[in-house]
Amino acid sequence: MADGFGPGPAAGGMPESLDRLVTELARLPGIGRRTAQRLAVHLVRADAQQSIQLARSLDMARERIVRCHRCFGFSEAPVCGICLDPRRETTLVCVVEEPTDVLLVERTAEWRGLYHVLGGALSPLEGIDPADLTLAQLEERIAEDGVTEVVVATNPTMSGEATASYVADLLRGRCRVTRPASGLPVGSDLDQADELTIGKAFSGRRDLA
Amino acid sequence: MADGFGPGPAAGGMPESLDRLVTELARLPGIGRRTAQRLAVHLVRADAQQSIQLARSLDMARERIVRCHRCFGFSEAPVCGICLDPRRETTLVCVVEEPTDVLLVERTAEWRGLYHVLGGALSPLEGIDPADLTLAQLEERIAEDGVTEVVVATNPTMSGEATASYVADLLRGRCRVTRPASGLPVGSDLDQADELTIGKAFSGRRDLA
Repeated sequence: MADGFGPGPAAGGMPESLDRLVTELARLPGIGRRTAQRLAVHLVRADAQQSIQLARSLDMARERIVRCHRCFGFSEAPVCGICLDPRRETTLVCVVEEPTDVLLVERTAEWRGLYHVLGGALSPLEGIDPADLTLAQLEERIAEDGVTEVVVATNPTMSGEATASYVADLLRGRCRVTRPASGLPVGSDLDQADELTIGKAFSGRRDLA
Repeated sequence: MADGFGPGPAAGGMPESLDRLVTELARLPGIGRRTAQRLAVHLVRADAQQSIQLARSLDMARERIVRCHRCFGFSEAPVCGICLDPRRETTLVCVVEEPTDVLLVERTAEWRGLYHVLGGALSPLEGIDPADLTLAQLEERIAEDGVTEVVVATNPTMSGEATASYVADLLRGRCRVTRPASGLPVGSDLDQADELTIGKAFSGRRDLA
């Protein structure tokens, strides 16, 4: 192949330390190898200040972020800013699977009640039982805080729906239990929906119990 | 709004340190705020080992990556592995704009010659003149290494085409100067093309001088 084309030596050209950085970045969720390469090159070429700031903010977040003792959402204090916000309707609780779901609902700016993070969804196959979720703490809050309505905003997936049914059965007769209506495509995660869809799903919520 | 819906207090729910990490991540190229949030949450929740390894590989890459003295591509030594590889056709040189373009062409495993990184493309508007590129070093290599063909694989953009013409004029009569043919959509960057497209563009290259 004197013209320089055709299968050559193993495709390389990537210095080892750069390759290792690309590999680490590609382990992050949703980051493919090509995006990882672009990020790696950017980080290697960026001025030192930017990568130091990134590393510092990661350290700080890892150090400070804990779970709120009341709602189990992300917090930097024992009780989070939402739980302590006096403008919130404390009789309304939105139940979600993960702390990130709180951020998603908050971005719609539609919900003025509080939250309760279950820490997952029921899944017999994955061995996630009711005891693995913060259901006892939810019941406690319902009883102690005079909660009148619980909106169960678990993901519209098999396990999310099962969890919603379970919560409805658990709380039946104690308060109104609703579920966000259509808008969320079945089989997807809250994570994939836009603010408008999540907002619409909330305003069209239906009674479960 | 006693039912808990409607515009509420400023959308928040994101602890400050997490928000700062999201902001830092969103400064990376191609990372929107939503992806940044997903990455931040992942990094905060991942086991310490993963984020330590990421930080360490970033430090290591930043420390070790330099430019090859010969081709100006990424390297961990004064002269890079491609330039030193005895299986490479040293009489064939592929001219690219950026070090990352070397990685892209290498991934096609089609090119067995060497590279020369210009360090950009001519752009009078941005004040990038021939003197800002590694053109003198390219001329030197042509003269010293008995180069018979230069493939100018600058981006198929205005400035990339202008640079290719400039290189063709500069080297006319000294060696064959070619340009990868169709396949690369005009107006885009090499960065956006897949391996197959880049490979095809190489095999269908046309003479410029």
